Amino acid sequence: MKTTISQVSKHLNEEITIGAWLANKRSSGKIAFLQLRDGTGFMQGIVVKADIGEDKFQEAKALTQESSMYVTGTIVEDTRSPLGYEMQVTDFEIIHEAVDYPITPKEHGTEFLMDHRHLWLRSKRQHGVMKIRNEIIRATYEFFNENGYVKIDPPILTGSSAEGTTELFHTKYFEEDAYLSQSGQLYMEAAAMAFGKVFSFGPTFRAEKSKTRRHLIEFWMIEPEMAFMDHEDSLEVQEQYVSHVVQSVLKNCKIELEALGRDTGQLEKIQAPFPRISYDEAIQLVKEKGFDDIEWGDDFGAPHETAIAESYDKPVFITNYPAEIKAFYMKPDPARPEVVLCADLIAPEGYGEIIGGSQRIDDLELMKQRYEDHGLTGDAYNWYLQLREYGSVPHSGFGLGLERTVAWIAGVEHVRETIPFPRLLNRLYP
Amino acid sequence: MKTTISQVSKHLNEEITIGAWLANKRSSGKIAFLQLRDGTGFMQGIVVKADIGEDKFQEAKALTQESSMYVTGTIVEDTRSPLGYEMQVTDFEIIHEAVDYPITPKEHGTEFLMDHRHLWLRSKRQHGVMKIRNEIIRATYEFFNENGYVKIDPPILTGSSAEGTTELFHTKYFEEDAYLSQSGQLYMEAAAMAFGKVFSFGPTFRAEKSKTRRHLIEFWMIEPEMAFMDHEDSLEVQEQYVSHVVQSVLKNCKIELEALGRDTGQLEKIQAPFPRISYDEAIQLVKEKGFDDIEWGDDFGAPHETAIAESYDKPVFITNYPAEIKAFYMKPDPARPEVVLCADLIAPEGYGEIIGGSQRIDDLELMKQRYEDHGLTGDAYNWYLQLREYGSVPHSGFGLGLERTVAWIAGVEHVRETIPFPRLLNRLYP
Ligand SMILES: [Mg+2]
Ligand SMILES: [Mg+2]
Repeated sequence: MKTTISQVSKHLNEEITIGAWLANKRSSGKIAFLQLRDGTGFMQGIVVKADIGEDKFQEAKALTQESSMYVTGTIVEDTRSPLGYEMQVTDFEIIHEAVDYPITPKEHGTEFLMDHRHLWLRSKRQHGVMKIRNEIIRATYEFFNENGYVKIDPPILTGSSAEGTTELFHTKYFEEDAYLSQSGQLYMEAAAMAFGKVFSFGPTFRAEKSKTRRHLIEFWMIEPEMAFMDHEDSLEVQEQYVSHVVQSVLKNCKIELEALGRDTGQLEKIQAPFPRISYDEAIQLVKEKGFDDIEWGDDFGAPHETAIAESYDKPVFITNYPAEIKAFYMKPDPARPEVVLCADLIAPEGYGEIIGGSQRIDDLELMKQRYEDHGLTGDAYNWYLQLREYGSVPHSGFGLGLERTVAWIAGVEHVRETIPFPRLLNRLYP
Repeated sequence: MKTTISQVSKHLNEEITIGAWLANKRSSGKIAFLQLRDGTGFMQGIVVKADIGEDKFQEAKALTQESSMYVTGTIVEDTRSPLGYEMQVTDFEIIHEAVDYPITPKEHGTEFLMDHRHLWLRSKRQHGVMKIRNEIIRATYEFFNENGYVKIDPPILTGSSAEGTTELFHTKYFEEDAYLSQSGQLYMEAAAMAFGKVFSFGPTFRAEKSKTRRHLIEFWMIEPEMAFMDHEDSLEVQEQYVSHVVQSVLKNCKIELEALGRDTGQLEKIQAPFPRISYDEAIQLVKEKGFDDIEWGDDFGAPHETAIAESYDKPVFITNYPAEIKAFYMKPDPARPEVVLCADLIAPEGYGEIIGGSQRIDDLELMKQRYEDHGLTGDAYNWYLQLREYGSVPHSGFGLGLERTVAWIAGVEHVRETIPFPRLLNRLYP
């Protein structure tokens, strides 16, 4: 019976066949241990000379790394392996012999591995990270579908961009100028007025000359937007969503978390509600921690965020930032208009900001004022003003950066390992 | 209790409050009928002067289209409406009064509606189409997750493109040249070698000066790729996937299909297996149907596809096209190398091709030959060759165009209504 490594628990003591690659091997005079991978998982195959015969045993000993084959054998328990099973190989048929596979079990430099990303993905570590990414995506759809959100795909190509124009990728759109989206949020606001609760999941682009472990040029965002919800309602959605994602990974990615050596005790604590501190309190906190490079009115840098996160074992919301350092569409706090009804969610363990969100301005006159203040002239954003003109309602939303969230949950230091084919400064290949 | 229209069946004979917009209204001297929408659905609210009082009744009669409000009332059965319920309004509070909403119940021209897409999405018809799109996306994730596929996001920005260079959007990527992806397939092949079965769902771009009802500049594709699967295995995945999607929409979008006037009898027939005819037979068939503008070796145009589809009440696979008119990576039929192991899936009712797929070349020497034939020189696609160098395996995959699939299932003539914010020739706004 043809099956996969992910299914072997259903075939205990049965003979099965899998299509697989040789990840690694070791052998003695009488036994060869094949580390097999088939994409769904990793499993050890035991080849015993006395059982399989001399010729086949020599063939097994000569197998090269990443050669592909069909392997047949009986599934038995193996309590020492994370999988819990191994295969007693009775036969194998080589499909294709790989010669001099570039990524050997020895150490390789980062640039070499990145140049071979199409092959590096086959390693146990990269496999684990991508399976966790996959589970986060799956749990995201599950959460928003089950809570009545409609998936809306905002456009990637736009005629202009309201949020800064220096970090945009430009292209000619026939006779017009177009830019790659940095956020679908404004479109998601239009969609929330039509569908109530919506979420997006798609790529966004920032032509930023940053070379930090938290920055990608092309990254994926999840952007929910909810009509008839205020800022506090939105915080509750955020903490429930993030908790759901973390708990789903814990439940469904045990083998991968173990392969990555992730401290799952840290993840088990991630349950709603999350702590909230105001921007004012956060400024106070970093000053108390000895930072003298920040004053009220400044944005936090990565070291400040890490210092704040150290005080908590869950993600922490920093709320009510000064309006000056936040986006033009955020709603001022009625009690204190110099701050806005917003929050950034800072992940634990130094992984930094994973969510930015706010209640949006719903008053037409105030939004017109903001347009003027930010030089948003011309007709390009007339449509966005009209959302405040025709049946404006209180509404809130947020954006979660997928790759930073993967980095945190998988316990991976650099975001370049959290997306299949990373785009970085000087990195457009493969 | 605050809830939504989608939840009213749980609140029969209870008093609830919803946040809503006025989609339409009519009134007599004693009763006003409010057509309410809240994004989750449409519901009639009945305002009776004798119950609510003279002042409030006059306020209800004066409500303008798309004004927003909180409406309170008791849910009662209404067997005449698709929802099955209506609200006996006991109170309402206006949030924001809309003046001169541009899209009135009268007819509007297409360009006017497209200019107001951000508002047009609120209409019952556009709402229905987007909810069906959402259900197709949900069912897509469900199908591939339940069948062990890993979601892989291929890059949008690439250093070069193997499939034609004339219809590419170009951008400067710092000092380099980059192009927007027309397909993630080559990357999905690399991913299949690492994860076995993978699928993508993301935007793709074609700078094509086509202005037909089947073309968008920016459109979303689902691209599964499977290691250890041959062409016939892939056809089985395709027919099961498409059947699952159609049956999910039938089950979960009853109200929307009815609002769109969709003939659901046509959709009920969509169950695997689907018929298969060879390219040779399809050429024969269109000739028999009177077309004299096509010969063996030509690709089918939309009229030919429609004529072929007319012979079937399910989607039909056209298999084994001439290698000459198909992509360079498709595997030749060993028994007849002038045709390739591929299929296009043609939707019924004239909606055209929704899937293209094939088995891929797995032989390194043949792929090198194809590179030479197609002038794929330089290092840009070395990585793709390496997939045939290191543990090559039989593998197959396909790409489904989301918007054409939405058009077919929703019964919408033009793909411009199947994506939230369409990008067309001369259409980059809103
Ligand atoms: Mg921040
Ligand atoms: Mg075709």
